[in-house]
Amino acid sequence: MVQAASKHLPGFAHEDRPTAADSDPAALGWMTGHPVPAARQVRWDDGTMWHFPQLRWSFSHCRDLVPSAGIPRGPAVRPLPVASRDDLDDVTLTTLDGQAMSWRQALAATYTDAILVLKDGAVVYERWFGVTTPATQHILFSVTKSFVGTLAETLIDEGRLDPHARADAYVPELAGSGLGDASIRQILDMRTGLAFSEDYVPGAGGLTDVQRMSLAGGWMPRQPGYDGPEGHHAFVASLGRNAPHGGDFVYRTPNTQALQWVIERVTGDSLATQIGQRYWQRLGMEADAAIGVDRIGTAFGGGGLMAGLRDMARFGEMMRLGGTCDGNVIVPPAAVARIFAGGDPAAFVATRYPGNLDGNYGSQWWHRAGGQLMAMGVHGQGIYVDRAAGVVIARVGSHPVASNRGNMAVTMPAYDAIVAALAG
Amino acid sequence: MVQAASKHLPGFAHEDRPTAADSDPAALGWMTGHPVPAARQVRWDDGTMWHFPQLRWSFSHCRDLVPSAGIPRGPAVRPLPVASRDDLDDVTLTTLDGQAMSWRQALAATYTDAILVLKDGAVVYERWFGVTTPATQHILFSVTKSFVGTLAETLIDEGRLDPHARADAYVPELAGSGLGDASIRQILDMRTGLAFSEDYVPGAGGLTDVQRMSLAGGWMPRQPGYDGPEGHHAFVASLGRNAPHGGDFVYRTPNTQALQWVIERVTGDSLATQIGQRYWQRLGMEADAAIGVDRIGTAFGGGGLMAGLRDMARFGEMMRLGGTCDGNVIVPPAAVARIFAGGDPAAFVATRYPGNLDGNYGSQWWHRAGGQLMAMGVHGQGIYVDRAAGVVIARVGSHPVASNRGNMAVTMPAYDAIVAALAG
Repeated sequence: MVQAASKHLPGFAHEDRPTAADSDPAALGWMTGHPVPAARQVRWDDGTMWHFPQLRWSFSHCRDLVPSAGIPRGPAVRPLPVASRDDLDDVTLTTLDGQAMSWRQALAATYTDAILVLKDGAVVYERWFGVTTPATQHILFSVTKSFVGTLAETLIDEGRLDPHARADAYVPELAGSGLGDASIRQILDMRTGLAFSEDYVPGAGGLTDVQRMSLAGGWMPRQPGYDGPEGHHAFVASLGRNAPHGGDFVYRTPNTQALQWVIERVTGDSLATQIGQRYWQRLGMEADAAIGVDRIGTAFGGGGLMAGLRDMARFGEMMRLGGTCDGNVIVPPAAVARIFAGGDPAAFVATRYPGNLDGNYGSQWWHRAGGQLMAMGVHGQGIYVDRAAGVVIARVGSHPVASNRGNMAVTMPAYDAIVAALAG
Repeated sequence: MVQAASKHLPGFAHEDRPTAADSDPAALGWMTGHPVPAARQVRWDDGTMWHFPQLRWSFSHCRDLVPSAGIPRGPAVRPLPVASRDDLDDVTLTTLDGQAMSWRQALAATYTDAILVLKDGAVVYERWFGVTTPATQHILFSVTKSFVGTLAETLIDEGRLDPHARADAYVPELAGSGLGDASIRQILDMRTGLAFSEDYVPGAGGLTDVQRMSLAGGWMPRQPGYDGPEGHHAFVASLGRNAPHGGDFVYRTPNTQALQWVIERVTGDSLATQIGQRYWQRLGMEADAAIGVDRIGTAFGGGGLMAGLRDMARFGEMMRLGGTCDGNVIVPPAAVARIFAGGDPAAFVATRYPGNLDGNYGSQWWHRAGGQLMAMGVHGQGIYVDRAAGVVIARVGSHPVASNRGNMAVTMPAYDAIVAALAG
């Protein structure tokens, strides 16, 4: 049942769109052949890398399509012990809209490209689909934000960043812009009045804010005569404010770009350097990572990280263990405590995120009422940390719906079912 | 003595141009700042990545500027033993145009970014300049060709490639084009009548062939309405012939692109996959490599490899040891023998390459009369293999003159002096 599906299908409704099997990027042969014939091309310069089902290939190959900065791993790989539980395939669950399915079916329903489950640090489940392999650096989209937030919380504990200070105290270029007078804490928790709509569905006329951001950052090709901002930082500085800061949580990616800018000014390092020095070279990562950069070398901290699934799991495991890895402190205990404490649930009510109605958002991480921590990126990227259960789940995906509202009705019950099965 | 220097200064004359010290990319601060101010930007979309002295930064950061395919290293790094000979700094030499200088001065005269000398497999000398570090994947330009040639010679020994067959027997799309009726051996040795001028100096009007190749491959931004070939393969297929095949050696990069195309058809793999499986994952490389790709994913086998200096040395050392690494055969002995035998010196006479008048070119490698093997790329990239002396030299550079005619008058006497010193 292949139809001309847009990338931006509306959220929850189960439209008549290609299934995971029908849209399998290996079966469809994207980017195969020497040279690749036109019908199988997935490109940056014609925008097809963002189209479904082509995105099922491109999300595993972003580095082949756009410039990126490398994030080298350290000298020693930290092995992940394996204690397979293949029986998890048949764990059953009921989605939030009432469908009964198995865990294995849930992976297809969420267009999962790869998934790994750790229980007490051991790999109990690991699956790879389509063109995604253990060597793939999949685009993580907004999972990137949780790395940025963790860096910022760390700098606070190191006394280098004051959560009560205004953003323009660190980045004078933000003075007078929408975020200039926002506090670092407000930016960390996305409780600013920034004039920006995080809408991934193109409208009938004109560019969306997300498209304008993508043009500034080089993720979409520009038309001749483009006169918008040059690069991610200039884009953030170009935005105004349409509400007071400190109100409800509203998810807006440029908050993270501002936070990245602050981090770069405080440390003097690029975001890639900080992520490399603090995480990739200290957690026994098994592969280099990368981050997409704009035309003047600025990383897209709002969503540009590209990493291997197992290394995502290693980061999640470090967080589960209170910010430590093999006894080394990677994230200071107070920063870890603030991250797990989360934001103000009252500020989250208006969001009513499906599958997480009672949760909150803080420090650039999502939280569930049960205390679980989630890094989430569009199209199904995620790192899930359940300390009480001793479970970490890393997932990359290529769901046709950008917003995770399109998959949370399956994802959350599926994770709950797996955690319950592993507790048994 | 900074002047407005073009990238394409004519070869041998010692113009009044910035010295290596004056053009040091770290001192000039290219691409520093968050964001990078306009005066310090080095970009793909305005062509500044190809300008001197900006290229002294960009050649160490090509991956940050253009899309690339990753070439992962293997699980275990093979250490290079160290036996430093710091006295080599003061080795003296006389350039071909009669200047006396020390080895250390020769490094500056050749705008060397980094250099490593192995003697009997041990690192006797290693230096890093400017923004180039052991973690850098420097662009290797036509050193890439020697990897492609080594692959082709290997496939010949594996019985998968017939050196006497026509190119269009493997790649039907080449039928009727300039290279369709050239033999694999003629292409390997660059003795084809292809209508293409390897001229790196832009003319007064119109595009040069090298520029048209760069536009097709995405290394230069296109103007609106571009209607040239899409990608490296289409570019090769678009070229005609203006002389019989089998004549004198004439250096033309599209020969290598055709050879890559043949290799991809014979193996079914991308060039990146072949280089990865055969070399990067088998030689104990210490860092991932990469190769620049066009808009449809085709690697630039003519010059797009990006690699660490030490890993270049590991490849050279494997060749020095007759195609082996730790007793494993990496390149079959007969292929190694053909590569070291070189091409026909008589076909090389017209080239009169300075510093190598009595040499030849074969199997996509340069040869000196003394039996040394050289992989060479514009602006000073190189791997030098002297089996008799037990010496391997890897070098990356950013000389203002693209053609190695701009540096060979220093490079060759310098290498000879180092080899002599190490023999002492």
